[in-house]
Amino acid sequence: MKFAVIGGDMRLAMLAGLLAADSHEVKTFAIEKTAPLRGVTQTSLAGEAAQGADCVVLPLPLATREGVLVTPLSGGLYTTREIFAALSPGQVICAGKVDDASRETAGLMGLEIIDYIEREELAVANAVATAEGAVQLIMEETDVTLCRMRALVIGFGRIGKLLCHRLRGMGAYVTASARSWADTAWIHAYGYEAMDTGRLEGALGKFDVVVNTVPARVLGYGRLRELKRGCLCLDLASRPGGVDFTAAARLGVKAVWSLGLPGEVAPVTAGAIIRDTVYNILSERGAAD
Amino acid sequence: MKFAVIGGDMRLAMLAGLLAADSHEVKTFAIEKTAPLRGVTQTSLAGEAAQGADCVVLPLPLATREGVLVTPLSGGLYTTREIFAALSPGQVICAGKVDDASRETAGLMGLEIIDYIEREELAVANAVATAEGAVQLIMEETDVTLCRMRALVIGFGRIGKLLCHRLRGMGAYVTASARSWADTAWIHAYGYEAMDTGRLEGALGKFDVVVNTVPARVLGYGRLRELKRGCLCLDLASRPGGVDFTAAARLGVKAVWSLGLPGEVAPVTAGAIIRDTVYNILSERGAAD
Amino acid sequence: MKFAVIGGDMRLAMLAGLLAADSHEVKTFAIEKTAPLRGVTQTSLAGEAAQGADCVVLPLPLATREGVLVTPLSGGLYTTREIFAALSPGQVICAGKVDDASRETAGLMGLEIIDYIEREELAVANAVATAEGAVQLIMEETDVTLCRMRALVIGFGRIGKLLCHRLRGMGAYVTASARSWADTAWIHAYGYEAMDTGRLEGALGKFDVVVNTVPARVLGYGRLRELKRGCLCLDLASRPGGVDFTAAARLGVKAVWSLGLPGEVAPVTAGAIIRDTVYNILSERGAAD
Amino acid sequence: MKFAVIGGDMRLAMLAGLLAADSHEVKTFAIEKTAPLRGVTQTSLAGEAAQGADCVVLPLPLATREGVLVTPLSGGLYTTREIFAALSPGQVICAGKVDDASRETAGLMGLEIIDYIEREELAVANAVATAEGAVQLIMEETDVTLCRMRALVIGFGRIGKLLCHRLRGMGAYVTASARSWADTAWIHAYGYEAMDTGRLEGALGKFDVVVNTVPARVLGYGRLRELKRGCLCLDLASRPGGVDFTAAARLGVKAVWSLGLPGEVAPVTAGAIIRDTVYNILSERGAAD
Repeated sequence: MKFAVIGGDMRLAMLAGLLAADSHEVKTFAIEKTAPLRGVTQTSLAGEAAQGADCVVLPLPLATREGVLVTPLSGGLYTTREIFAALSPGQVICAGKVDDASRETAGLMGLEIIDYIEREELAVANAVATAEGAVQLIMEETDVTLCRMRALVIGFGRIGKLLCHRLRGMGAYVTASARSWADTAWIHAYGYEAMDTGRLEGALGKFDVVVNTVPARVLGYGRLRELKRGCLCLDLASRPGGVDFTAAARLGVKAVWSLGLPGEVAPVTAGAIIRDTVYNILSERGAAD
Repeated sequence: MKFAVIGGDMRLAMLAGLLAADSHEVKTFAIEKTAPLRGVTQTSLAGEAAQGADCVVLPLPLATREGVLVTPLSGGLYTTREIFAALSPGQVICAGKVDDASRETAGLMGLEIIDYIEREELAVANAVATAEGAVQLIMEETDVTLCRMRALVIGFGRIGKLLCHRLRGMGAYVTASARSWADTAWIHAYGYEAMDTGRLEGALGKFDVVVNTVPARVLGYGRLRELKRGCLCLDLASRPGGVDFTAAARLGVKAVWSLGLPGEVAPVTAGAIIRDTVYNILSERGAAD
Repeated sequence: MKFAVIGGDMRLAMLAGLLAADSHEVKTFAIEKTAPLRGVTQTSLAGEAAQGADCVVLPLPLATREGVLVTPLSGGLYTTREIFAALSPGQVICAGKVDDASRETAGLMGLEIIDYIEREELAVANAVATAEGAVQLIMEETDVTLCRMRALVIGFGRIGKLLCHRLRGMGAYVTASARSWADTAWIHAYGYEAMDTGRLEGALGKFDVVVNTVPARVLGYGRLRELKRGCLCLDLASRPGGVDFTAAARLGVKAVWSLGLPGEVAPVTAGAIIRDTVYNILSERGAAD
Repeated sequence: MKFAVIGGDMRLAMLAGLLAADSHEVKTFAIEKTAPLRGVTQTSLAGEAAQGADCVVLPLPLATREGVLVTPLSGGLYTTREIFAALSPGQVICAGKVDDASRETAGLMGLEIIDYIEREELAVANAVATAEGAVQLIMEETDVTLCRMRALVIGFGRIGKLLCHRLRGMGAYVTASARSWADTAWIHAYGYEAMDTGRLEGALGKFDVVVNTVPARVLGYGRLRELKRGCLCLDLASRPGGVDFTAAARLGVKAVWSLGLPGEVAPVTAGAIIRDTVYNILSERGAAD
């Protein structure tokens, strides 16, 4: 098959290389600030890359608020409208975190964009890489071993589940907190200690590390003040985040906010995750095996 | 608080004992064929048990098709209508697998029945006990160790997830199969080998045990014929089950269909699961802590 | 190669079948009370079985105190001297738990007996089957799930290490006790809670199950009295065992003494363990691959 | 109690702080290039630090070949003879990797030195930190996730056992190799794939990471050549190491030799390990609880 990869960060660069390694024909545009990728053809026009492609992969996220394509690995500046103009309705067009404006623009031009960030399999695979990156960060940011560390993971969604599993696997004593009884049942099912996210007060002083995974302000001044000296506080929640960093600074709590871990700690895997998801999308459309 | 436990199997008997152990006042009816339970008062009339109770717990399942209360631990025969007549609208009434007819009957009498089988936390906790019971069964039905056994678990829902976790924990080599890409991503996230439930053909010969958890005919003649001599085939799916037992018998495949494992292998835990769920229901209604 | 399997319990019967399945020529004697084994020739004279064999496998344990071959699967009664008379010095002769008298008798007849029970790989593999059997026993003897059970394993040798691993794998909260600081370090290395076997007093009341693996009287009246109502006490230690069963009976503590679990819960694996060890012995002697 | 900590790297500095945190009186000498440690008194003479101490802790390793105390955190230069002259026979004197010359010198001065590196509990605890550091290194040196990585660990001693456990805990597919049948039995007992360290040829091409833990040249040109492109090769063996780094460089294999991981990735834990061992030594001598 023929692919065009246009814009994006290291993950899309890796994606291009991985697609080529699978013997596909791959052309790229607007990711020129990367080392040459074996089997990948760099082009200098969006139209040249897109021409004849069965499938076009666009960045994650697709665009800025101003409708500009996200291209950290390029010196150029391109509106999504410009890029869309180079595509055609017969192509399978995939992009990540597609905003309403971009989707509307595309629609007016007769193009349908499939948002790969909405795919459950991508979310799960990203959660794996995020949990793993969190383990690495905790190792790097502390001067003790994970073994026998007392860890609290707030939230038992995808990332919470996998992070607990990994921390336990490294020898830590794991407590997870959740809001629903169903999640509490899952926490118990895996043999962790369970707490109610709404009632953490008075029980936070025993932990060596606290990791937040829920996108709500769960760690404000009062709770941060309870943490013991030297406790690491790691926030994996997307904006606006769950930790009051101003309060943390005031209290001398070491707090780290980490977003986009997959691309950072495992760019090849992050690229492979997008590749697998694109393959799944194509398979569902009967466009590939 | 005051509880009435009316009818049901060993799980409801255990429930009565556990409620009494929590210092509640507990009266029972129609579970008289059990050893006396410490702190529990047996009554000989439904009305006597229900009188003054804040909460009434009925069997799982509630009734037969004919509208008769399920009472394996009683010599008596009671219609649900009879039992409902002894209850009052102010009571919190919990029952399991409530059929439409019973619900309608109750409604006409001004009673609302809360079905505890529909609670997610109960389903998860039951899955734990089911997975554990499956491990016990495999141990009992084979003359080799779980350690290094090659196991295939079909389906990666609640029971599948937990069964894989336990089998891995016992040293088995675990493969799980699923239909969706999201489930495949979860299987990989936990480090198991993954297969597509729709494409098991040709790959079934290497397993020492195959456990089905999906309620669909996934193991018919063709697939059963592939199993190696001595492979154990365990079906945990509810009716109509996933294994063609006639074909299995014809092929000499050792196939076991197991339902209701929690109550069988861990009746106290099964009772505790209902207790916790009832407490949660009461808590949501502001009737208890 | 040619093998003779003479006497012994189900494990040796299974061994004979497994050797035949590996395409060896196998003759047996004094295990006639078993179902016919595919590819195995039953003989009615020790000499007939041993004649021409490269390797002769004898029971585990080899003999009674009176020098009689252990043959639970035979109606006959044979002295070890009788059996030895049928063997020749050129054969590799393997037996288990060889007593001094038997070894001396054999020596006088020019025979060297290799004791397979002294092989470390057999001890480890047996520990796996024992730990697994213990998990099965705990499941069968309790009416709650292993998940969230509070378990204490006394001793962190082979069986202790593996039992902790399996219990943790099933979702239990695991504490192990040991006497040496090195073992305590290992307990911590795997993330379990650690206790000093010499100082269990005052801390035994919280466990749901206590398993002893050390061959010393570690659970006497005083400690048993501390156990909570319903706590299961399992003794895996060889004679004289570690539990005061008289005291347990007096106190109403449910205590189970279990020996020979591998042969009981997984006879085929138990036979395979002996087979592998015999192969290793032969390999070291240059007699096989 | 009163402690003197003299010389050594970050681990001994951390040790001093930890002893003070346990309410002991602690004086240090020759570790002045570190941030002030709460509750610790820095002295400018060995005699001042040692004066009145119940226990003196010296570096790991104690001295250079030339008999000079190892003091990376000090600007001074001191012979062990000088330091010994400040100590007295009534003190418990602990040091690590004590060479024969130093031991003899001490003996002539009437001093007995206890080598804490020879303590099994310290070796186990260090293996935990080493295994964990190896996991961190693999994460940092690769651009894929550990999850589903195919890892080979050569050697199943302390570090090998724990590294396999952690890698499995992170979702990797783990193979371990060993030389003895007993170790192979342990590898199988934990559910890993096993290989013979002497017969790795022809099977190395499938691994994404290979970690050596045995102090012998197990990875020479021939084996390194088999590794697949991008495979990381990590050597944890002490001198002379197990990897032919010259061959690795020639072949373009990414090879990393890592020694002293505990002090590097978890200095506080490394200090705590020495503290615990010193406490154990004192306890055995009846000098402390």
